[in-house]
Amino acid sequence: MKALVYHGPGKRAWEEKPKPKIENSTDAIIRITKTTICGTDLHIMKGDVPEVIEGLILGHEGVGVIEEAGQGVSNFKVGNKALISCITSCGSCEACKKGMYSHCETGGWLLGHMIDGTQAEYVRIPHADNSLHHVPDAVNEEAIVMLSDILPTGFECGVLKGQIKPGDTVAIVGAGPIGLAVLLTAQFYSPAEIIMVDLDENRLNIAKTFGATNLVTDNAVEKIMKLTDGKGVDVAIEAVGASSTFDICQSIVAAGGHIANIGVHGKSVELHLEKLWSGNITITTRLVDTITTPMLLKTILSGKLKPEKLITHRFAMKEIMKAYDTFENAAKQKALKVILTNK
Amino acid sequence: MKALVYHGPGKRAWEEKPKPKIENSTDAIIRITKTTICGTDLHIMKGDVPEVIEGLILGHEGVGVIEEAGQGVSNFKVGNKALISCITSCGSCEACKKGMYSHCETGGWLLGHMIDGTQAEYVRIPHADNSLHHVPDAVNEEAIVMLSDILPTGFECGVLKGQIKPGDTVAIVGAGPIGLAVLLTAQFYSPAEIIMVDLDENRLNIAKTFGATNLVTDNAVEKIMKLTDGKGVDVAIEAVGASSTFDICQSIVAAGGHIANIGVHGKSVELHLEKLWSGNITITTRLVDTITTPMLLKTILSGKLKPEKLITHRFAMKEIMKAYDTFENAAKQKALKVILTNK
Amino acid sequence: MKALVYHGPGKRAWEEKPKPKIENSTDAIIRITKTTICGTDLHIMKGDVPEVIEGLILGHEGVGVIEEAGQGVSNFKVGNKALISCITSCGSCEACKKGMYSHCETGGWLLGHMIDGTQAEYVRIPHADNSLHHVPDAVNEEAIVMLSDILPTGFECGVLKGQIKPGDTVAIVGAGPIGLAVLLTAQFYSPAEIIMVDLDENRLNIAKTFGATNLVTDNAVEKIMKLTDGKGVDVAIEAVGASSTFDICQSIVAAGGHIANIGVHGKSVELHLEKLWSGNITITTRLVDTITTPMLLKTILSGKLKPEKLITHRFAMKEIMKAYDTFENAAKQKALKVILTNK
Amino acid sequence: MKALVYHGPGKRAWEEKPKPKIENSTDAIIRITKTTICGTDLHIMKGDVPEVIEGLILGHEGVGVIEEAGQGVSNFKVGNKALISCITSCGSCEACKKGMYSHCETGGWLLGHMIDGTQAEYVRIPHADNSLHHVPDAVNEEAIVMLSDILPTGFECGVLKGQIKPGDTVAIVGAGPIGLAVLLTAQFYSPAEIIMVDLDENRLNIAKTFGATNLVTDNAVEKIMKLTDGKGVDVAIEAVGASSTFDICQSIVAAGGHIANIGVHGKSVELHLEKLWSGNITITTRLVDTITTPMLLKTILSGKLKPEKLITHRFAMKEIMKAYDTFENAAKQKALKVILTNK
Repeated sequence: MKALVYHGPGKRAWEEKPKPKIENSTDAIIRITKTTICGTDLHIMKGDVPEVIEGLILGHEGVGVIEEAGQGVSNFKVGNKALISCITSCGSCEACKKGMYSHCETGGWLLGHMIDGTQAEYVRIPHADNSLHHVPDAVNEEAIVMLSDILPTGFECGVLKGQIKPGDTVAIVGAGPIGLAVLLTAQFYSPAEIIMVDLDENRLNIAKTFGATNLVTDNAVEKIMKLTDGKGVDVAIEAVGASSTFDICQSIVAAGGHIANIGVHGKSVELHLEKLWSGNITITTRLVDTITTPMLLKTILSGKLKPEKLITHRFAMKEIMKAYDTFENAAKQKALKVILTNK
Repeated sequence: MKALVYHGPGKRAWEEKPKPKIENSTDAIIRITKTTICGTDLHIMKGDVPEVIEGLILGHEGVGVIEEAGQGVSNFKVGNKALISCITSCGSCEACKKGMYSHCETGGWLLGHMIDGTQAEYVRIPHADNSLHHVPDAVNEEAIVMLSDILPTGFECGVLKGQIKPGDTVAIVGAGPIGLAVLLTAQFYSPAEIIMVDLDENRLNIAKTFGATNLVTDNAVEKIMKLTDGKGVDVAIEAVGASSTFDICQSIVAAGGHIANIGVHGKSVELHLEKLWSGNITITTRLVDTITTPMLLKTILSGKLKPEKLITHRFAMKEIMKAYDTFENAAKQKALKVILTNK
Repeated sequence: MKALVYHGPGKRAWEEKPKPKIENSTDAIIRITKTTICGTDLHIMKGDVPEVIEGLILGHEGVGVIEEAGQGVSNFKVGNKALISCITSCGSCEACKKGMYSHCETGGWLLGHMIDGTQAEYVRIPHADNSLHHVPDAVNEEAIVMLSDILPTGFECGVLKGQIKPGDTVAIVGAGPIGLAVLLTAQFYSPAEIIMVDLDENRLNIAKTFGATNLVTDNAVEKIMKLTDGKGVDVAIEAVGASSTFDICQSIVAAGGHIANIGVHGKSVELHLEKLWSGNITITTRLVDTITTPMLLKTILSGKLKPEKLITHRFAMKEIMKAYDTFENAAKQKALKVILTNK
Repeated sequence: MKALVYHGPGKRAWEEKPKPKIENSTDAIIRITKTTICGTDLHIMKGDVPEVIEGLILGHEGVGVIEEAGQGVSNFKVGNKALISCITSCGSCEACKKGMYSHCETGGWLLGHMIDGTQAEYVRIPHADNSLHHVPDAVNEEAIVMLSDILPTGFECGVLKGQIKPGDTVAIVGAGPIGLAVLLTAQFYSPAEIIMVDLDENRLNIAKTFGATNLVTDNAVEKIMKLTDGKGVDVAIEAVGASSTFDICQSIVAAGGHIANIGVHGKSVELHLEKLWSGNITITTRLVDTITTPMLLKTILSGKLKPEKLITHRFAMKEIMKAYDTFENAAKQKALKVILTNK
């Protein structure tokens, strides 16, 4: 089969690889019909994720059809359409029983990271019963691919951890795909105001059409304190992964407020406990667990959520090298999410 | 009347001051029967709390008898015995309605900070209906004084914010009076292990008698990781207010765990988001709100909580200068809490 | 002044009464600008609420202007515009500190029940600081009157007690003003489906325009089980107060589901524990506490909630006898809420 | 092998049956070392559980050693010691992902109910990875058997559903093994008072030694209202399954309180909504899900919980007919739990 293979920093190829096989009785083999590229794949390509070995197939998102199911798989049968969670989980270890699938003892973020991923014609999914989700025939497949990672990431790490409530004032720092996924799912809880912060005007304009009530580019702290009559925001969501954006969050959070960190940080940050110690502040971190995927699926089926709005570019899977080129120049190409279809 | 007056860094005196009067109809005047000295009073004496003006009466803890009640006070009558909360609160502003009494628009930490405090024969308590608590005659008054500040601080900022659950492994970093108040109230939720960290052997030995299951002095991170089979603790409580103790907390917290900061920090700390971003960690800060005082009172009345164990030294109120001398040398004097009685 | 006075079952008059005076220092006198009639007022008129004495002024909803404030009132000044909560509360007693204002030791549902109410030119409000809310000048006063009772009732007793979550399937049994208030506020939490049950086609049609996804008149249990593939609903809300409607709720609730009772019941009901004992079901009751009024006000100010949609008829306050005639024939008159304006 | 087989109402035998075999790759075969008899087994013997077919091996509790594990079992190996949950669960279906293992689509209460149970030398456990728990060698095996059913039932259905908090007043109606399991685990949350209600003086005396603060036999409602100064209890737990005991619960619950039903009811009960509609009451039902078993195991290992106190009689497994005789006359024999050991 064909697959997108990592060959060290900056080097990738769409090339022939052996079709995957069942290795454990709880595995399933999926024929991929649609996949996408994540910002994290670009980090891997830059060499920022050293545990990814050369020769690995990238990708941790996708939808497909069950090609083969191990004897221990009971929820899925050959021919079923299935959504792949970016997180693989057994469902039964101590971490999984707490809903922390990302810390599963024999799972976690494996696909396109520790084992071959989804940017390929076929992929092997361990712990298939707990790591796949049934997809109704009627549903828009493009929308569903957004449930592999980006929607549950925005919702679980941003909206749920931030504990957004009706009437809240929320600031989302970073209007990339993740920040926009937060914006879409934050509205499940009807905050009064959603302030979107980014330097890219194009992304802010998209945020406006997605439901942001205020847009901020420069002097974010000053402007947000003004907008909130000096009180600050109930929830500040860090969706970038930088010291400067975390600083904005800790400067604008109101007494009793929440800072939900989603961004992947390469360095430590300065935490101003000398100001925050008495502020009744909650700061959270989390890697997506994909435990809300069934709920998110319901909101898509009911028409409450239309994540396909995040998709800006479409390619055939065999054009994936070109899709990477586009996504690597996201700002210039005005790209959010790209979709790759395997026909 | 006599009172303990602050006269600038390092200077205090037990001297004559005018007896307080009702200023607003919701005030009450209390004749103090018992009070105590808080670690925060020592910070004030060092000049670390610049908003405290010279001439102010110190103290924010105490129990007494209603001497006079304004017309707008409906819950208390002259002669009632009352516990004074260290936090004054109206109960009706936006912050109070959220249970954040410490951020009350016309209250918060006022006593011995912004207005005259409780280390005196009489004290004026604003918003008396919401800032005082009835005390049954039968109860041990010394135990009750511990409810003004230290018990609710340990319980609200440490135990509740840390979300201690049955079966948890907890580490309390700092075995001073606050850390010990955490230790006493953490046991309401039956954690499996409570590891106490401090450099002072005497305090650790007291912690042992209060219910700590493990004691750690040096190499805290290494030892705690060993004790927990490399997993770390479910809840780490910072009860010191220093960079080094916060560092211990972030190094020992398990995936899915909580860091509850109680300590008053004078400087920023380094937060290792490069390690913690994916850890599903929750970090909290809080100033005590004293909203759990009624519940804590119930646990004292039922004999479940015996906070008088924290009291190591007793003085007459007129000996308060000597009591300060003792408390300022707490380690040497093996002092935890001192009690001052106004006869 | 003029007021609507109850003179025993079936007898009411718009007549002269003495203008109220400050009785306690925490009282305020309000000049009413807008009020409304509640279904509960009709129950009183039928003699169903025996504790209401003859000669009492009815009404527990309204907005107005502070005419006079007692010395103990600190949050409101003469001339301030204020919303009146149907529940009077001190904010400081044991019940109030738990957020159960409806069980306030010196408050609760007093207005138009135990003391003179709001269907008058002036009304005395005890515990004014905690029982009134500031109203911004810009806001639609008619919308605000809906916050005295009906909106917080639907939201607190139905939506919050029912724990409606994104993606849920909800059934609201009863499409009267309360059921419609549930419908409006349920959408704060983005349920996937909201099934509205009522016998009145007109009300169901209104429900459709308010966001109901399914309408059911007869054979409710059978139809709802079919709609939910035999699973039942996540949340069933009883908004009538009858044995038959409670029965529908217990027949359609899914495993793990919630039944939130709002209806005022005159008789006991049969609870089918022989079926429900293993169902992981939660049944709740509640009288409104009006603790969510500040939050609901924010959602109105931000344009997320438009409760003025519930208003079908408008009268001058002096036409209140006619307004009662209309509201007493609500089905025929297609009346939901009537508004009375004091010019 | 030998097993206890049901032959219709009133008929049971200890007889030869075929040793179970792996049927699905996720099954495990356990050699039972210790088991017990549940009150539910007595109900089956009376013919009250009609879905139990003649010829079935009874029993849903036990501890043992893995004799054989299917290819799809990854958490357990031959020779491992394992605790058997009374609830079998896949961990991956919609119900399991919500923590409702008792409603697992291919699990639930199967053992000794729908499939052969644990009162035998060997038992087949479906979905072994999620339905078994590792048992440390050091631990008291008798204590562990109490974790198959009775401890998690008391804790999940009574303590957690009842939301017992520090300082609460709790009434447990029924001092049988389940009521006593509630009593033991309620103390994890440090309620101020635990009132035990039963007609059997012997059981009440045991309750006293287990931590009950008050004992009530007759006139329960009157006595409990007196004990609580007319307020009622914060949490009332129904641990019998009768109309009269449910009535006690609804008569003694305080405003804002909880009624947690554990009892298995054969008939409907009368629910006094005409009194409770405004009481802010929560009523819950639940079948145990065994999701707290890992936590309960930790509390046993740490010495916080000693459930072996519930064991009054011990037999060899081959004496099981005699053990049933004893347990069927529990009151006379002063029996709580019996333990059967397979040597």
